[in-house]
Amino acid sequence: MPEIVFINSFEVPVDRDEDFLLLWKEIDDYMRGKPGYRWRRLHRSIDPGSRLRYVNVAGWESAKHFDAAHDETFRKMQSQPGWAHFPAYPSLYTVVQEDGSATS
Amino acid sequence: MPEIVFINSFEVPVDRDEDFLLLWKEIDDYMRGKPGYRWRRLHRSIDPGSRLRYVNVAGWESAKHFDAAHDETFRKMQSQPGWAHFPAYPSLYTVVQEDGSATS
Repeated sequence: MPEIVFINSFEVPVDRDEDFLLLWKEIDDYMRGKPGYRWRRLHRSIDPGSRLRYVNVAGWESAKHFDAAHDETFRKMQSQPGWAHFPAYPSLYTVVQEDGSATS
Repeated sequence: MPEIVFINSFEVPVDRDEDFLLLWKEIDDYMRGKPGYRWRRLHRSIDPGSRLRYVNVAGWESAKHFDAAHDETFRKMQSQPGWAHFPAYPSLYTVVQEDGSATS
């Protein structure tokens, strides 16, 4: 079965990288231990003027696994006041066109 | 040298998929023939209510290759009036955190 891809784009002011990465790492560490988690790549824009300065792209076995991973502990992490500074655009995607390989 | 990743997120109304994909394919076909192009994955959200319904993630050898590919022909394609219906958030990124593999 083809995997499902979670993409979350973040608006992060240029002087807030450290705060953002601290919050992100907490959730990231937790999610990577969940059943169905496969891989993730966190991207940072090379242009400080970009609106979506961080984009996380993550592969999961299925939407069911992904949903199950977002439990009480996740919700506690995500409701921390610090996250209010970083508007986010999360969604689950399927790959509709693909060639080559994203492995580096 | 680590590759550079171009990510472009698009706002596409649910009833405009066909128009969007037609415009996108024209530019995609052109770019895939350019020096330094490596791979790309086009993602569509499984949630019709998502703001960023399409996200294209593409690997390039370098920012220099990427910039050179955006020539006169590209600009002509991109300036077509149809694109005005699809707000886009393009930027070049480096991978700051990575594990696993995005190959399916």
